[in-house]
Amino acid sequence: MEHFTGTSRTDLALEARELLTKQVSEDIPGVLVETSEDEEVVLTKVDITTPEAEKIMGKKQGTYVTIEAQGLRYKNTPLQEKIMKLLADELVGMAELSKKATVLVIGLGNRNITPDALGPRAIDKIVVTRHLQEILSPELKGGVRSICAIAPGVLGITGMETVEIVQGLVSKIKPDLVIAIDALAAASSRRVITTVQLANTGISPGSGVGNKRFGLTQESLGVPVIAIGVPTVVHASTIAMDTINVLQEHAPFARYFKSMENLSDADRHTILRQVLPEVLGDLMVTPKEVDRFIDDIAVAVAGGINQAMHPHIDYENIHAYLH
Amino acid sequence: MEHFTGTSRTDLALEARELLTKQVSEDIPGVLVETSEDEEVVLTKVDITTPEAEKIMGKKQGTYVTIEAQGLRYKNTPLQEKIMKLLADELVGMAELSKKATVLVIGLGNRNITPDALGPRAIDKIVVTRHLQEILSPELKGGVRSICAIAPGVLGITGMETVEIVQGLVSKIKPDLVIAIDALAAASSRRVITTVQLANTGISPGSGVGNKRFGLTQESLGVPVIAIGVPTVVHASTIAMDTINVLQEHAPFARYFKSMENLSDADRHTILRQVLPEVLGDLMVTPKEVDRFIDDIAVAVAGGINQAMHPHIDYENIHAYLH
Amino acid sequence: MEHFTGTSRTDLALEARELLTKQVSEDIPGVLVETSEDEEVVLTKVDITTPEAEKIMGKKQGTYVTIEAQGLRYKNTPLQEKIMKLLADELVGMAELSKKATVLVIGLGNRNITPDALGPRAIDKIVVTRHLQEILSPELKGGVRSICAIAPGVLGITGMETVEIVQGLVSKIKPDLVIAIDALAAASSRRVITTVQLANTGISPGSGVGNKRFGLTQESLGVPVIAIGVPTVVHASTIAMDTINVLQEHAPFARYFKSMENLSDADRHTILRQVLPEVLGDLMVTPKEVDRFIDDIAVAVAGGINQAMHPHIDYENIHAYLH
Amino acid sequence: MEHFTGTSRTDLALEARELLTKQVSEDIPGVLVETSEDEEVVLTKVDITTPEAEKIMGKKQGTYVTIEAQGLRYKNTPLQEKIMKLLADELVGMAELSKKATVLVIGLGNRNITPDALGPRAIDKIVVTRHLQEILSPELKGGVRSICAIAPGVLGITGMETVEIVQGLVSKIKPDLVIAIDALAAASSRRVITTVQLANTGISPGSGVGNKRFGLTQESLGVPVIAIGVPTVVHASTIAMDTINVLQEHAPFARYFKSMENLSDADRHTILRQVLPEVLGDLMVTPKEVDRFIDDIAVAVAGGINQAMHPHIDYENIHAYLH
Repeated sequence: MEHFTGTSRTDLALEARELLTKQVSEDIPGVLVETSEDEEVVLTKVDITTPEAEKIMGKKQGTYVTIEAQGLRYKNTPLQEKIMKLLADELVGMAELSKKATVLVIGLGNRNITPDALGPRAIDKIVVTRHLQEILSPELKGGVRSICAIAPGVLGITGMETVEIVQGLVSKIKPDLVIAIDALAAASSRRVITTVQLANTGISPGSGVGNKRFGLTQESLGVPVIAIGVPTVVHASTIAMDTINVLQEHAPFARYFKSMENLSDADRHTILRQVLPEVLGDLMVTPKEVDRFIDDIAVAVAGGINQAMHPHIDYENIHAYLH
Repeated sequence: MEHFTGTSRTDLALEARELLTKQVSEDIPGVLVETSEDEEVVLTKVDITTPEAEKIMGKKQGTYVTIEAQGLRYKNTPLQEKIMKLLADELVGMAELSKKATVLVIGLGNRNITPDALGPRAIDKIVVTRHLQEILSPELKGGVRSICAIAPGVLGITGMETVEIVQGLVSKIKPDLVIAIDALAAASSRRVITTVQLANTGISPGSGVGNKRFGLTQESLGVPVIAIGVPTVVHASTIAMDTINVLQEHAPFARYFKSMENLSDADRHTILRQVLPEVLGDLMVTPKEVDRFIDDIAVAVAGGINQAMHPHIDYENIHAYLH
Repeated sequence: MEHFTGTSRTDLALEARELLTKQVSEDIPGVLVETSEDEEVVLTKVDITTPEAEKIMGKKQGTYVTIEAQGLRYKNTPLQEKIMKLLADELVGMAELSKKATVLVIGLGNRNITPDALGPRAIDKIVVTRHLQEILSPELKGGVRSICAIAPGVLGITGMETVEIVQGLVSKIKPDLVIAIDALAAASSRRVITTVQLANTGISPGSGVGNKRFGLTQESLGVPVIAIGVPTVVHASTIAMDTINVLQEHAPFARYFKSMENLSDADRHTILRQVLPEVLGDLMVTPKEVDRFIDDIAVAVAGGINQAMHPHIDYENIHAYLH
Repeated sequence: MEHFTGTSRTDLALEARELLTKQVSEDIPGVLVETSEDEEVVLTKVDITTPEAEKIMGKKQGTYVTIEAQGLRYKNTPLQEKIMKLLADELVGMAELSKKATVLVIGLGNRNITPDALGPRAIDKIVVTRHLQEILSPELKGGVRSICAIAPGVLGITGMETVEIVQGLVSKIKPDLVIAIDALAAASSRRVITTVQLANTGISPGSGVGNKRFGLTQESLGVPVIAIGVPTVVHASTIAMDTINVLQEHAPFARYFKSMENLSDADRHTILRQVLPEVLGDLMVTPKEVDRFIDDIAVAVAGGINQAMHPHIDYENIHAYLH
């Protein structure tokens, strides 16, 4: 089944499953899916429970929670707050932290490439408290965990693998949990900036906008790692596949084709993985308003983490307390 | 021949001609082409001399000079200076300005969308002198023209058409020439950030990254307009066409197709203009390092204009004189 | 009384009066003052009603409304919204606009010098609608005035006086009102980023962070001009005066001084206007966190203008309507 | 002599000595000074050689090299290159590195506070090579050391002391040398952005724009630390002292003072350290054009480090080799 990975050119487990279920069957053995939704938000939980399911999905065993809201592209404070709350709730459930836990938040990505800058910009908005533990008043202490945060930069700028930097920090700071924030690539433009994914699997090699060479995982760091990701670019292969679909689905073009219904997985793989990257090189496909979108979604992600970590703070007055 | 416009989805006259000559013939009547090159730079002059040629090319009658240097993507000061000098020479030839001329430089585009920000960033680097005319020393005055410059912003932020703003300024400032700097879209990723185009036709409606609704031309402004443009994005249609080409040219895929050699112009047009924009919506395709590239090319464009306008300044000491 | 201007080195009428009333008397003839306050906000209205009062105050005849809230330095959404609402109410009262009025908003200042960038950053957040008048639905039209906006840049970058640019725009756009947003200098660090001043007098020459050479007033533009200003820097003279006060007020230093109680206005003037500028040159005094403060206050100012101009819009959904 | 520290409110050893020698004597025992200069640049070497000299100067024992060039405020490529070369030479002399050494460059400061952003911005311009050691061609390898670099952020944003972060990195990366880049505070506005200081003492607690709580030194890190600093702000106390000097030196004000010639060091200390900070709070004094200056000086500092670390690279083509 190895050739199926050609179809799952997405960092979202949700999309990996959608891409597969279109082709194979509604149910994938070892993959549990649960969905709940209201008018504004769709929440999906994908559990990959077996090594076989891991292979089919091209995603590590573990739990992936996706929060989707098309409205996130429009400045809309109440929706942003709802997403923050949902993200906080899911994060609390996934993290199972004691009140005395120390958490290290890592903002991955290159702050000078806008669609890759989600992590660094979210870090600027995290309420860090580790350095304040001794001076916090007792009543505040109950609701304020020990949080620290860093945007370590990318290999091309630091000359160090991110995993090396984080290993160095973990050995010094000894956190109970690492949370890693990253910009992702999606298979569908509909998901860009509208979706937040949490996963208890950490960050895998090769994922994200900047293509990590090593992962940030419990194996590499020695502590649990929760990844929070938001798609900010579309794979160029998406446009390529859309083009092929347009050619096939629009009657007037049919005369040019024998049939592509039977385009084999192996050929799809060849097109997406080998041929197009040569043509496209270092191009990326991103929304025109990506600069504004990144700022808004960084607020939502950081806000969700802040609420999960410091549950009893009055956020309207948080700056009066802490700064 | 109207359907040919489907093929010229580029703001570069050079590419418009390349796209045509691949399909029709080496010579297009009424289009004169002159090329000179060395190891680093290719300079091409395209003259569109007849109304018929204007129709075929989908570009206004006039002169288009293109300076191409693949090396521009790499920080390379001597090459940048060579490009500035070439740009200055071509601009001097095209503008035919008296020493006492006043020139208004307009930086088009949205400063908050990186690939569209070339114009505003170049404006910040123009050596403006109009407000200094009375205090300049006589020896300096000979080499310093009266230059002013503005980045007026885009319709969605100002609520005013750029042409309205510039008309208001022209009526007040009464310049002898308007130079308009704009980010363009190219048909080939090879041209992005490596090419500067000068044209004595002004800016046409619908061109540029931000799709102008009205043009900046001698007709609309009452004074000559020279446009300086640099491609910073690729049309998504480029990826679509590349995909089609990949499908056709790679033997293993041949079995899916009848022949596409005869893909009609009308069908090409349908694909590029009607089908893909629906699929792609507000996405743009741009190099990953576009933030850095834009800064570098803004320096080159502004430097070329500065040298053309103020020929006798010692640029190493220019800030000592003027600031 | 001309020497008194030495004391009013502030762009705030409120401070000009405070500085004077410390020295002269509680009441200045021709200056009417009205104050209202609650726990968070102090609102002061200063009316300068006679040419004599204009001379004494060093501020043009007219109405100055000041909204002060120390809490504005801390990210605090409910307080920001309260300030927006107050600003909107005061602006509505001052502007007396018909529903069909067209308003041109000008963001003064240099976007590359952070403390001077308030105007340009606020402009990016104004909801412009002039270009949408024809496509707005009738029910929306009642609550949406025709607004346009521009950040024209500063003399050193454009080579054009701001007043020339605005005159050109006014002659083309023919607005019923100009609103000018500007960063100001305060005499007291307590006022920096905590105070918004509205004035129906326009912008005077020499005021603001960037020291305008010409004013934006009804006289120069031919239409009413409302100025909205926020102090973002402190005059260096403030530090100098604070130093002198420290020296005088702290008992241990008293032995160095004869008395400075009688420091004459003329001498004060000499210190502040002639001696210190030589020493200080191009330095400015500003809060360390000015980058963040400017963004927050730009949101409040733009939000107040938006609410005043478009009273019936549901702001939570405004982006769905307009973008 | 402890009260003398009141006079050395500067991060520059050069200024510490100037401030002292005005008051005490031309020679300070244990402080060796060597100066060389040409028309553009003054190079000064201050050696603090005894514990007594350390106390008097308020600076750690060690070598401080200062490169001053007033012209650095004006964009002037040849002068920038000369400074880079000088900085590279001095750094080579001070570092005494083997060809196989690994160097970790740390950019201190807060990237969101412009005058404190020198370190982070310089880091973006360092040519990092540690991750390329295996793929470099043999001829390139001779001239390319193993360099890595990071801007760790500040305590208020990370919740971690910088020294903790760097200790974690040093334990993982095991560099032979740490170079720390920092923005400094000067006692004289003349030194701001015109001076680069190298010191083999590392970074002391309490120094820099952001006031470090712990130092980065050989003691805390276990490897040699070279500090490179550039003054980007002036102490507010400078303005206060300038004011006092103005008051004393200008004849017309003399009548207000008994005499301040004998202002005791203890009183000076009280003014500068206790009284003024209360008045000035979180204000900083910085040049108006600090945004532009920081970028230019970051280029010079990073360029000097690059040349010192990679002596045999052809810098015109460096990007072709490495990126």
